[in-house]
Amino acid sequence: MRRTSLKTAKCPVARTLDVVGDWWTLLIVRDALKGVRRFGEFQKNLGMAKNILSARLREMVAAGIMEMRPAEDGSAHNEYHLTEAGQRLQTVLVALRQWGEQYLFEPGEPMMMAVDRDNEQPLRRIELAARDGRALTSADVMVKEGRAAEPAKSSRRVSQRAR
Amino acid sequence: MRRTSLKTAKCPVARTLDVVGDWWTLLIVRDALKGVRRFGEFQKNLGMAKNILSARLREMVAAGIMEMRPAEDGSAHNEYHLTEAGQRLQTVLVALRQWGEQYLFEPGEPMMMAVDRDNEQPLRRIELAARDGRALTSADVMVKEGRAAEPAKSSRRVSQRAR
Repeated sequence: MRRTSLKTAKCPVARTLDVVGDWWTLLIVRDALKGVRRFGEFQKNLGMAKNILSARLREMVAAGIMEMRPAEDGSAHNEYHLTEAGQRLQTVLVALRQWGEQYLFEPGEPMMMAVDRDNEQPLRRIELAARDGRALTSADVMVKEGRAAEPAKSSRRVSQRAR
Repeated sequence: MRRTSLKTAKCPVARTLDVVGDWWTLLIVRDALKGVRRFGEFQKNLGMAKNILSARLREMVAAGIMEMRPAEDGSAHNEYHLTEAGQRLQTVLVALRQWGEQYLFEPGEPMMMAVDRDNEQPLRRIELAARDGRALTSADVMVKEGRAAEPAKSSRRVSQRAR
């Protein structure tokens, strides 16, 4: 029942949580962004029960976040690859990551860090900004009724059928 | 068991999901950012069972995301206010929101939009950037072992005790 109500919500936060609101899903995306491709690797890295992992991956493929491909080395294993939509969840992961870095670690505590591959420096902190670039705080943001953009974006949408 | 392993993970994504990985929690933060303060209002807006809402709010207070205060109008009701750490979850919500706007709505479909309070225009799209401002794609980001920053930030941390 909750699934239905979130899926058709007018709020994009709610709809997104319908797709990725299970924390396993975001941890799977995290590992896929690091280059994990195979069922056994996900299972080992995440320590998940096979049946739960299997269900999550199936849902992610159905939602258009992941796709299955034959293994690149020609072996019998299938590989799971993030679609473009799945890769774009990186912003969600970085926002979660930076919040955790700020609030959930002791100074000097060992921590996995997301860095720029070029120079291994941490990423710029995500800040909210207006269209013209002005920095915004949470108090500067309000929510109002509107409509989804009309044009070109539609080609990038996740299939509604698949959801 | 999963709670324990995420709470002490070296990955900030995992630790953050330990605190906010329940989708109700993020919907409560969303509504609190809109100005919802009272138990009954959260309950009505979200259509949650009272016992679940009550448990979530208690956890959020313990985690340092929310705090309880006497009602501003002097009535007997308590109010729930986001702490600074809670307000900072706005970046996570905007990242979720923008992903949903892009992938989960038909063109022209009615949608609740986050806008700049000043001019009611949509926010700038969150993009990943290097420290020097270069735009990064998900392929430009890697994860490596490091340590949490040493200095001033510690004053802003969520209490470990409370977690």
